[in-house]
Amino acid sequence: MVFKKITLIGRSSESFDEAVDDAVERANETLDDVHWVEVENFGVEVAAVDGREYQAEVEVAFELQE
Amino acid sequence: MVFKKITLIGRSSESFDEAVDDAVERANETLDDVHWVEVENFGVEVAAVDGREYQAEVEVAFELQE
Amino acid sequence: MVFKKITLIGRSSESFDEAVDDAVERANETLDDVHWVEVENFGVEVAAVDGREYQAEVEVAFELQE
Amino acid sequence: MVFKKITLIGRSSESFDEAVDDAVERANETLDDVHWVEVENFGVEVAAVDGREYQAEVEVAFELQE
Amino acid sequence: MVFKKITLIGRSSESFDEAVDDAVERANETLDDVHWVEVENFGVEVAAVDGREYQAEVEVAFELQE
Amino acid sequence: MVFKKITLIGRSSESFDEAVDDAVERANETLDDVHWVEVENFGVEVAAVDGREYQAEVEVAFELQE
Amino acid sequence: MVFKKITLIGRSSESFDEAVDDAVERANETLDDVHWVEVENFGVEVAAVDGREYQAEVEVAFELQE
Amino acid sequence: MVFKKITLIGRSSESFDEAVDDAVERANETLDDVHWVEVENFGVEVAAVDGREYQAEVEVAFELQE
Amino acid sequence: MVFKKITLIGRSSESFDEAVDDAVERANETLDDVHWVEVENFGVEVAAVDGREYQAEVEVAFELQE
Amino acid sequence: MVFKKITLIGRSSESFDEAVDDAVERANETLDDVHWVEVENFGVEVAAVDGREYQAEVEVAFELQE
Amino acid sequence: MVFKKITLIGRSSESFDEAVDDAVERANETLDDVHWVEVENFGVEVAAVDGREYQAEVEVAFELQE
Amino acid sequence: MVFKKITLIGRSSESFDEAVDDAVERANETLDDVHWVEVENFGVEVAAVDGREYQAEVEVAFELQE
Repeated sequence: MVFKKITLIGRSSESFDEAVDDAVERANETLDDVHWVEVENFGVEVAAVDGREYQAEVEVAFELQE
Repeated sequence: MVFKKITLIGRSSESFDEAVDDAVERANETLDDVHWVEVENFGVEVAAVDGREYQAEVEVAFELQE
Repeated sequence: MVFKKITLIGRSSESFDEAVDDAVERANETLDDVHWVEVENFGVEVAAVDGREYQAEVEVAFELQE
Repeated sequence: MVFKKITLIGRSSESFDEAVDDAVERANETLDDVHWVEVENFGVEVAAVDGREYQAEVEVAFELQE
Repeated sequence: MVFKKITLIGRSSESFDEAVDDAVERANETLDDVHWVEVENFGVEVAAVDGREYQAEVEVAFELQE
Repeated sequence: MVFKKITLIGRSSESFDEAVDDAVERANETLDDVHWVEVENFGVEVAAVDGREYQAEVEVAFELQE
Repeated sequence: MVFKKITLIGRSSESFDEAVDDAVERANETLDDVHWVEVENFGVEVAAVDGREYQAEVEVAFELQE
Repeated sequence: MVFKKITLIGRSSESFDEAVDDAVERANETLDDVHWVEVENFGVEVAAVDGREYQAEVEVAFELQE
Repeated sequence: MVFKKITLIGRSSESFDEAVDDAVERANETLDDVHWVEVENFGVEVAAVDGREYQAEVEVAFELQE
Repeated sequence: MVFKKITLIGRSSESFDEAVDDAVERANETLDDVHWVEVENFGVEVAAVDGREYQAEVEVAFELQE
Repeated sequence: MVFKKITLIGRSSESFDEAVDDAVERANETLDDVHWVEVENFGVEVAAVDGREYQAEVEVAFELQE
Repeated sequence: MVFKKITLIGRSSESFDEAVDDAVERANETLDDVHWVEVENFGVEVAAVDGREYQAEVEVAFELQE
C-alpha cells in the first residue's frame, strides 16, 4: 500500500482555486484513490492566451493498487 | 517589543482564501497583537474528508507583551 | 528578444487572486509585452491596515524592446 | 538509455529503514532496472493509524527500455 | 479546528528512529491531538556527550482545542 | 530532555547584532535553558519607524523541563 | 487540458546540451504534446563509464489527452 | 559604488551557452559596467517555437553610476 | 499602490551593518518611498580590494508612484 | 579555535544509521576533535551493488588545531 | 587556475563581524590566495560557553596552486 | 570505503562544458578515485577578465583510501 505522487498543472480562466480543482478533477478521472494534493507553484499565462490563464502546479498523491 | 511567530494550518471546505482567514481568525481569538501572516504552503485533503478540504499553512507574527 | 523579469507586490482588501491581478494590471500599464507571471509569496498585512490586506509578491516577465 | 524518476511513499509500522525498503520493493515489482533511490522526506502518521506509521517519500530512478 | 505545528528535537543514544520517537512521546504527554510529524533534520552530537547522541528535529502537528 | 525551538524577531535601532541580542534577552526572561540560537533572516524596517529598525528573525532552542 | 510533468535524466558522452537533447528526444518518442522542459540538475558520471558521461535531470511538461 | 542586479532571460536556437551570451550582450548594450552574471535556470521551449529554443535565466550585476 | 522590489549590493570596508546602510542610502537617493529591506546574502571580497570589502546583497521594497 | 566542516558519504549494507556511523568512524580515524555531524542526504544504491547499499551524505564539523 | 572552496566556522564573544573576520584570518594563515568569502549561516551558542559566542559559518574560496 | 566531496570552481574562456571539464581534470591530477561530479552553479565573470570567463562550481566525489 505504497503512495505514488505525480505532478499536474491545472488551468483556469477564473482563479487559482479553480486551477487547483481542475488538476484534482483530472486526477480523479483516472486514479481511484487520490489522498491529498500539495500546491507547488502558482502562475499566470498572459501572452499565449486571451485574457489571463491561472495555472497551479500540484503534486497529487494516490494509493497504488496491489 | 519582540515579535514571535507561530505556525497554524487553517482549513476550509470552500477556498484557499477562507483557509487563510480561518487561521487568522483563530490567531486573533487568543493573541492581542497579530501584525502579519506569511503563507508557507497550500494543500488539499481528499481521502479523509467529504469532498475537499483546502488547507493553508501560515506563519502568524504577533508582538509579545512585556 | 530577451525577456526581463521584475518583482512586484500587488495588494487587495479582498483576496489573493485580486492581489495578483493588481500586480498584473500595474505591469500592463507601463509594459507592452507581459508574457507570464510567477507567484513568489502570499502574505496578509494585519496591523498597518483596517481589516486585512492580501499581498502577492510576483515576478512579471516581459519582452525587452530592441 | 534515458533514466526516469518517479516519486513513491513507502510505509512501515516499524522504522524509516523499512519504509524506504517498502518503496524500493514496490518499485522492483513493476520496474526492471531500478538504479538508485533518493530520500526526499521522512514523516510519521499518528492520527489516522493505530500506533505510528513511519513514511518515507523517495525518488526512484530506473532505466527506460528502448 | 485549526492545526498548530511546533518544533521539537528528540534525542537518543541509539538511533534516529528512537530520536524521532522521543520527540513524539514528549509531544503526546502534553498534547491531546497529535496528527502527524515531519522530520526536518537529523544530526549527531559527538563532543558534548559520551559516545554519540542521535538528534532528530521534527515538526509536530496537532489540532487546537476550541 | 527534548529541545524545543521557537521563532522570535528581535529589533534594534542600532545594528543587527543588537537585534539578535534583543531576541536572546527576551528568551532568557521566560525560558530557563536556552542552548543556542540560529539566525533565519535579517531585515530593515524603514517606512513604519523613525530612522531605521534592524530586525533579526531567529530560532531559539531551549531544553524542555520534565 | 491539464499539463503533466515527468522527470527524465538524459545522458551524453559529449556535452550537457546533448544530454538535455537526449531527454527531449526520448520524451518526443512517446508523448505527442511536449510543451517545455526545465533543467533541474547537471552532473558528470566518471567511475562507471569510459571517459565521462554528462547527465541532465530535466522535467518535461506535456499536455494530457482528454 | 553600489551594485545592482537585474534578471534577464536570454534565448538561442542553438545552445545554453549562446542563450547566456544573448543575455550578457543585451545587458552590455544598455549598461556600462557589467561585472558578473549568475545563471539561475536553464529551460527549453518546445511548443511555441519551431524546433527548440534554449533559454537561460540569469542575474546580471553591474555598478550603479554615482 | 503596488510595491516594487529591486536588488542592490552595498559595500563597506568596515562592517556588514555599514554595507546594508550603504545600499539603503543609495536607494533613498533615487526612490521616494522605500518601505523595507530584506538581506539576501553577506559576503567578503578579499582578492580585488585592499584589505576586505564587506558586501550585503539586499532587496529594497518601495511603493510605485501612480 | 575555528571549526572546519567536511562532507563525507558513509555506506552500509544494513541501514541508514550504520551509514552515518560509518562516516563518523572514518572521520574519527584522522581527525582529533569531531564536534558534531549534520545529515545532508540519504540514498540507496541498487544497480552497482549486490542487494542494496544505504548511503548517508553528512557534514562533519571538527575543531582546527592552532 | 581552479578555485577551491572550504567551509569554516569563525567564533567571537563580541559580534558576527568578528566571527567572520576570525574565519578569514584563520584561512589567510594557511592559504596563499583567498579570493572571497560567502556567509552561509549565523548562530549564537549560549549553553556551552560563558556569556554568548557568535558563530559565522562561511565558505572561503581560494585559488589552487598549479 | 567512504566517499568524500570537495567543491571546485573550474574556469574557461570558451564554454560551461569546458569549465566543468577544467574542474574534473584538476581533480583527477591529485585524486585517484573520482566517482562523480555535481554541478552547483554556473556564472560568468565579466569585469575582472578580458572577454568573458565561464565558471562552474562543482562538487567532486571520490573514494577515500583506507
